Amino acid sequence: MSSKKELRIGMVGYGFMGRTHSNGYRRVGNFFPELEYQPVLKAICGRNLERTQAFADQWGYESVETDWRKLIARDDIDAIDICTPNNMHAEIAIAAAEAGKMVLCEKPLARTVAEAQPMVDAIEKAGVPNTVYFNYRRLPSVTLAKQLIDAGKLGKIFHYRANFLQDWTISPELPQGGEGLWRLDNDAAGSGVTGDLLAHCIDTAMWLNGGIKDVSAMTETFIKERVHTGTGEKQEVTIDDACMFHCHFDNGSLGLFESTRYARGHKALYTFEINGEHASIKWNLHDLSRLEYFDHRDESQERGWRSIHVTDGDHPYMDKWWVPGLSIGYEHSFVHQISDFLKALQEGKPCSPTFREAQETQKVCEAVLESAKTKSWKDTGVNW
Amino acid sequence: MSSKKELRIGMVGYGFMGRTHSNGYRRVGNFFPELEYQPVLKAICGRNLERTQAFADQWGYESVETDWRKLIARDDIDAIDICTPNNMHAEIAIAAAEAGKMVLCEKPLARTVAEAQPMVDAIEKAGVPNTVYFNYRRLPSVTLAKQLIDAGKLGKIFHYRANFLQDWTISPELPQGGEGLWRLDNDAAGSGVTGDLLAHCIDTAMWLNGGIKDVSAMTETFIKERVHTGTGEKQEVTIDDACMFHCHFDNGSLGLFESTRYARGHKALYTFEINGEHASIKWNLHDLSRLEYFDHRDESQERGWRSIHVTDGDHPYMDKWWVPGLSIGYEHSFVHQISDFLKALQEGKPCSPTFREAQETQKVCEAVLESAKTKSWKDTGVNW
Amino acid sequence: MSSKKELRIGMVGYGFMGRTHSNGYRRVGNFFPELEYQPVLKAICGRNLERTQAFADQWGYESVETDWRKLIARDDIDAIDICTPNNMHAEIAIAAAEAGKMVLCEKPLARTVAEAQPMVDAIEKAGVPNTVYFNYRRLPSVTLAKQLIDAGKLGKIFHYRANFLQDWTISPELPQGGEGLWRLDNDAAGSGVTGDLLAHCIDTAMWLNGGIKDVSAMTETFIKERVHTGTGEKQEVTIDDACMFHCHFDNGSLGLFESTRYARGHKALYTFEINGEHASIKWNLHDLSRLEYFDHRDESQERGWRSIHVTDGDHPYMDKWWVPGLSIGYEHSFVHQISDFLKALQEGKPCSPTFREAQETQKVCEAVLESAKTKSWKDTGVNW
Amino acid sequence: MSSKKELRIGMVGYGFMGRTHSNGYRRVGNFFPELEYQPVLKAICGRNLERTQAFADQWGYESVETDWRKLIARDDIDAIDICTPNNMHAEIAIAAAEAGKMVLCEKPLARTVAEAQPMVDAIEKAGVPNTVYFNYRRLPSVTLAKQLIDAGKLGKIFHYRANFLQDWTISPELPQGGEGLWRLDNDAAGSGVTGDLLAHCIDTAMWLNGGIKDVSAMTETFIKERVHTGTGEKQEVTIDDACMFHCHFDNGSLGLFESTRYARGHKALYTFEINGEHASIKWNLHDLSRLEYFDHRDESQERGWRSIHVTDGDHPYMDKWWVPGLSIGYEHSFVHQISDFLKALQEGKPCSPTFREAQETQKVCEAVLESAKTKSWKDTGVNW
Repeated sequence: MSSKKELRIGMVGYGFMGRTHSNGYRRVGNFFPELEYQPVLKAICGRNLERTQAFADQWGYESVETDWRKLIARDDIDAIDICTPNNMHAEIAIAAAEAGKMVLCEKPLARTVAEAQPMVDAIEKAGVPNTVYFNYRRLPSVTLAKQLIDAGKLGKIFHYRANFLQDWTISPELPQGGEGLWRLDNDAAGSGVTGDLLAHCIDTAMWLNGGIKDVSAMTETFIKERVHTGTGEKQEVTIDDACMFHCHFDNGSLGLFESTRYARGHKALYTFEINGEHASIKWNLHDLSRLEYFDHRDESQERGWRSIHVTDGDHPYMDKWWVPGLSIGYEHSFVHQISDFLKALQEGKPCSPTFREAQETQKVCEAVLESAKTKSWKDTGVNW
Repeated sequence: MSSKKELRIGMVGYGFMGRTHSNGYRRVGNFFPELEYQPVLKAICGRNLERTQAFADQWGYESVETDWRKLIARDDIDAIDICTPNNMHAEIAIAAAEAGKMVLCEKPLARTVAEAQPMVDAIEKAGVPNTVYFNYRRLPSVTLAKQLIDAGKLGKIFHYRANFLQDWTISPELPQGGEGLWRLDNDAAGSGVTGDLLAHCIDTAMWLNGGIKDVSAMTETFIKERVHTGTGEKQEVTIDDACMFHCHFDNGSLGLFESTRYARGHKALYTFEINGEHASIKWNLHDLSRLEYFDHRDESQERGWRSIHVTDGDHPYMDKWWVPGLSIGYEHSFVHQISDFLKALQEGKPCSPTFREAQETQKVCEAVLESAKTKSWKDTGVNW
Repeated sequence: MSSKKELRIGMVGYGFMGRTHSNGYRRVGNFFPELEYQPVLKAICGRNLERTQAFADQWGYESVETDWRKLIARDDIDAIDICTPNNMHAEIAIAAAEAGKMVLCEKPLARTVAEAQPMVDAIEKAGVPNTVYFNYRRLPSVTLAKQLIDAGKLGKIFHYRANFLQDWTISPELPQGGEGLWRLDNDAAGSGVTGDLLAHCIDTAMWLNGGIKDVSAMTETFIKERVHTGTGEKQEVTIDDACMFHCHFDNGSLGLFESTRYARGHKALYTFEINGEHASIKWNLHDLSRLEYFDHRDESQERGWRSIHVTDGDHPYMDKWWVPGLSIGYEHSFVHQISDFLKALQEGKPCSPTFREAQETQKVCEAVLESAKTKSWKDTGVNW
Repeated sequence: MSSKKELRIGMVGYGFMGRTHSNGYRRVGNFFPELEYQPVLKAICGRNLERTQAFADQWGYESVETDWRKLIARDDIDAIDICTPNNMHAEIAIAAAEAGKMVLCEKPLARTVAEAQPMVDAIEKAGVPNTVYFNYRRLPSVTLAKQLIDAGKLGKIFHYRANFLQDWTISPELPQGGEGLWRLDNDAAGSGVTGDLLAHCIDTAMWLNGGIKDVSAMTETFIKERVHTGTGEKQEVTIDDACMFHCHFDNGSLGLFESTRYARGHKALYTFEINGEHASIKWNLHDLSRLEYFDHRDESQERGWRSIHVTDGDHPYMDKWWVPGLSIGYEHSFVHQISDFLKALQEGKPCSPTFREAQETQKVCEAVLESAKTKSWKDTGVNW
């Protein structure tokens, strides 16, 4: 392993995403041995020293920081990985870019288009390698969908529909704000399900089916007040608990999107379906090793939705793992994104989605929220 | 059987729906022997004498007519069943009601709210028993959903979503108009998927979840021109090929509806899902003997979507059929609706959905089409 | 309809099977109008006059009999349909054949091979049209399996496995014997699950995959004693509650069969799966409109089990029913078998399975029971 | 991490299982930080130096050996992990035990009961911690099944059935012997599907349902000759391509097992189902995050098979991974087994399955093969 180039990682944030990214960095070398770069977990940064140290011990980070500005200032760090709540993405990313660091940022890029724009500008001005963790693209089943579409198997697309359904905020007793619950706090998150869940759906959709032109949306906040963990007081809830919209894609197909945290019985049910002239595709995150595929060109008596178990050696990424029939899981999407980032690095190419692409997703999110607020159609201004 | 009262049926139209209704009348006595009324297939009416006679022979109608006015004028007919294209519903129903006949009408009630209003007025003025064939309510799995909801199992409802997906009009070679294809001809049908498919979804939705208050919709016509069977010429297609809308229900829940005939791989995939505070329900027409049910009150480790095979003796209507595990099919929904009509008749009660209720569904359809046209939210004016 | 030839039916027995057969006779003309023969429900025979009359009223039988010998003696009856418990099949069938009547017999043919042999002899000596109701063959999904196999789609067959799982006898409180419960009484039934359930599996298997050569079996009676309805006393249970066997088919493939009435959660879960060199097939009765099909010749990345919704116009029998996507049910298998019987009649051909073929199934059942008893392999002596 | 005790691993074999075990050792510390022991990858041993070194580089082994005797002789190794073909298990395990090393052995324990016995003896004489990698027990869904059974949810068990279906040896062109294909070579493997696949099914079955008393089996070798990679010559194939058996468990329930590598369409479809008096369980490896559960005590109208997505924090092992709805994969079963081994080590308890328990599984395998050969029932002699 001594012949490998080191990519020295400095990570900010050690929550849920801190774990998924750390795991990605630690696993990638075992399964993608051909890569020239080997990530090294140089430093983890968090405000609480004790907990940051515990995380460092658990994951093998060489050092800890409690001030992200110091982390960025260090010479022995090549890349900054941002796993903080959304409201800190911009400041950290801009500072990192200005310091010449590569930046890998958790999604969504920012809380608003306005907040994201200087991030994109700074990244592009600095010319540093960058990516945003819309990790679901890198599940083998989703990548296979992309390959089938790009190979023209579906023909002209008529419909794209996606849902992201959860049920974890139904109880009115759940507070907003604070660790693990900042996603319910509009100041920290920027929005509710739109930025947290629909952003994933929108990224996948535009990757698979091209730009979204205009949208008509509706949002709802079912629980109007929750105790805020910070203040201990009941406060108005200002995030969107649920959001749904229909839209036109640039290619003339129709989109239908929905997300909620009030769909009892669904934990993280991200689903999408694409209907084309010749074939259709269905997918869901709860059964992530499967892709459902219908091909109208099959002999008519034998046509049916095919349940493809995406675990063969010729399926995307799967030659790196086990043998046919043996599934991988959610976390592998991060290993794959990091592998793709390292490969892009050695080839001198961008790793999609870049900050610029993530900004386009941000534009759709914002148009959606604006449409819901004004009860009118909104152009997204997306340039995909 | 001699002790039964006869209900003498005169049917107009012998297409697909003529067959489903005829089968309903012929089967009901074998499986619901306790009913006081026994339908008698007195006359079938169609414009083409030869084909009408063939249908009469096949189904055992005692006589044929080629002019529906004559049918209505006959003394030996108690009830008129309307299975014509939509553009003829109003005239026939009004004349039948004025002649004091009971009226059973295929859905949608009419092409527009304006066309439907005098139908409702005539029926109510005449005070004749009436029903509209929104048959899917009477599938045991759907009726079970109604029972679970009415028993309060779901608690407060947050979300209702329904799709009706087909794929039979994707080919541009398919003509519009004429037998079997009048559903593509706006003059005959009044709309495309909205009246044909979404009307079903809306009827079920309001039956299960109450009135729909306002809607925001989008429609599309993918194939702009088709040869018209009547003229042999290419003509503009003016129906909606696809329609989707979101909405508010009176109870505060959010609705999301979609229908299309361009969803490759789906033949008649009517689906709905309802998410409540405590429990959720999912259903689809392709697997019509099943109801999916999730109950959050189950012990936490053992919670999961239950796939209920709705074929037990204590499931709605199923004591009339076979033994547990043995499915019934699509056609049985009509047998059940006719059974319910006959039972309501003997009890002197209305049989839901009545013309008045079907008019409320018509209002939603019209608001949907109007919303799509004007790209704005529309109140439905529904009084459920 | 006057131009049709009448086939005058005299039925013995009005239980569950009496209903399915009666329904078949009444529906066949509506859906298979091209047939030359039209069944006429001439007489129903049962020991209890009142109940027999009620059944006649419900189903439209023209007359009733309480002695099956009188029924057979009548000149106005063309065909005897036997729906009695198994222990009466032989006597009735032989008498009917000797009287020159056609015979349609519910399965299993008899309680034993020895009991069945004179039935076959009498039928063949009389030369009367005959069939045994192994109805599951006539479900469109099962017939489609047959067509795929006969077209060579599967190639050489390696494996055949079938289960028939129920759970209705788990309670020790359930009595044996008497109406509806004669299936638990060895005198009436001849065996437990072997004749009741495995007979179906064996018939389908040999129809699809050829003769079964030898078997090795195990049976179990979980509840050793049950009250007998006849005597009111606790008596030994002598039927098999569960039976499983493996076997060789004549074509070299391996078979695995299991049946039980103690599989909690399964009502009538008849399943089979066939694995061939090139393709495989799976089927289950709870989802009877579907056939699962895997074709290894599909492009490798896109291979998956296809869930075929067997409701298209080019699927077996389905041109007679509704439109694509709309399911039929269990009862339709009987309509199809009667339609096939009538068609065979007009063509002067046998209608499979004949008594002779049903006797081969009987041989396998008997070898299975004998193998279980002797704990050794048994040749079946089947000549398929 | 410095406070942890090291467990210094010496692994023999770097094939498929070498990878799964290595991954387990490397990940366990990240996800089970509370463990006192931390595995250290001290040495990997293989015959081919270059490839062994490449493996060491990829997985971070500190050193390499080409002679397993030298590995065992090293002072800096605490535990020997055996990932060789089956024919080498005995010699290595015995030597390791005699040298006082802990032993973790890939399944099956050996090729025969006779070969395994001295392994058990040596291990027990040495008193060293030991385990055999029947990894599927440690999938959360399978462990949940165990918990439900142990909690008495199923009540008295009637049926246990398991399949392990693959399709990778259908082509006659596939050779036997050599790397990756030693599983087709009886000398190396000891048997075909019985030791490779059914051994898994048997281990899970006895863990969940207790000892297997007697068996009646059938085996088949479909392809009689294959080129041997070693000799380049066509040689007789002496493994079992397919094996099926029925059996009695000690608790009176009936078992049915089948395995084959000729089930087209199934890659690694290990399935089991257990039917109890009150409830039933179904599971399959292709959808390993799900457990199907039917509880007869549910209200009768709402009963159905529950599809439990085993990804909640209160599901076995799942508090260590991500959030509800996000799946883990196949490889995690090894992480869990290693975690359980380390936990047992710190508690001074055995880690099931031990060599002794694996020997009981071996006995069933041997009885199965013997039964097939002699075409008779065999007692297993199992003491569970």
